[in-house]
Amino acid sequence: MNVLIILAHPNMNSFNRAIAETASETLQLNGYNVIFHDLYKEGFNPVLIGKEIQEEALLEPIIEKHCMELSIAEGIIVVHPNWWGQPPAILKGWIDRVFRPGIAYKFLENDSGEGIPIGLLKAKAAIVFNTSNTPERRELDIFGDPLETLWKNCIFGLCGVNNFHRKMYGVIVTSTLEQREYWLRDVKKIVTEYFPLLET
Amino acid sequence: MNVLIILAHPNMNSFNRAIAETASETLQLNGYNVIFHDLYKEGFNPVLIGKEIQEEALLEPIIEKHCMELSIAEGIIVVHPNWWGQPPAILKGWIDRVFRPGIAYKFLENDSGEGIPIGLLKAKAAIVFNTSNTPERRELDIFGDPLETLWKNCIFGLCGVNNFHRKMYGVIVTSTLEQREYWLRDVKKIVTEYFPLLET
Repeated sequence: MNVLIILAHPNMNSFNRAIAETASETLQLNGYNVIFHDLYKEGFNPVLIGKEIQEEALLEPIIEKHCMELSIAEGIIVVHPNWWGQPPAILKGWIDRVFRPGIAYKFLENDSGEGIPIGLLKAKAAIVFNTSNTPERRELDIFGDPLETLWKNCIFGLCGVNNFHRKMYGVIVTSTLEQREYWLRDVKKIVTEYFPLLET
Repeated sequence: MNVLIILAHPNMNSFNRAIAETASETLQLNGYNVIFHDLYKEGFNPVLIGKEIQEEALLEPIIEKHCMELSIAEGIIVVHPNWWGQPPAILKGWIDRVFRPGIAYKFLENDSGEGIPIGLLKAKAAIVFNTSNTPERRELDIFGDPLETLWKNCIFGLCGVNNFHRKMYGVIVTSTLEQREYWLRDVKKIVTEYFPLLET
């Protein structure tokens, strides 16, 4: 079973990287095949260009590859910091360019694009791990935690992945080593809950 | 009075462009100085790199210029399509890179970054114009219209611009010429309401 991990953080020694690597190790221990993308390290270009909008557009090979991997993924794990209640631009552009019509969703025939899309992803579960420097109470009261609806409803729900879990770790900037170790154990637990040991 | 207009749409003949140009013409007729950026046309690079994170980082000249323009703007108008309940990546990256500490917000002394930031923008009003192919009822019921809280609370509210207005036009893909002309008249009306004729 293939599980796709997408990491988006500019620092090579970030806590986000530790989360993504912990998720990857846990999945491999549980018998899954991991497809791992560190969008920053790979220099992913997040800018969707006009000619890519049409469903039948000719795509760059790198986007074709991302689309293929997304469509075969039986699980998806995304790791990113909370920047302005949203993912970093590099990850937003991965959604813009890779979650394409015909890959991630489709419209019914006779629909010009204003109707209700039908999800096409076959992933059985999606997990989003976030880090934040905004205290939880303030995130909920002032900002309404927009990352929850963005990932759960606007992205994965629309594309047919309803088995969704999201966890926000923080406050990162003032956290201790002990807290971070505790959070990484929590990552292992959540990943194993959604992707348990495969019988061989 | 300087008003900054930011346009983010990949097509040079988009309805988003028509909105941005209508806003620009209206502002100029009303006596304002317009600073206009078409992020796609200018090839804006939206990827914030690690070394930019520190407040005292040495910035690329283009980012310095954007920061200067943002800090002198007495009004801000943003125009973009609704892509996955969020702005296109190129615009998300403009936020990531230009809304910097020391420019758009600051933390109190003795705060390590976990506290409540203080807005620094001096813009007296901000307007966001969006286009969408999602019917309004579905946007509200299923997705919760995340663009509202993203722009109003997470971005402009945090940076001290509380006089905020947002308008979503749609469904674009099935709209008639008459509807579009009506919408552009609405753009003029809203812009003039927030940026009225200056006495000379």
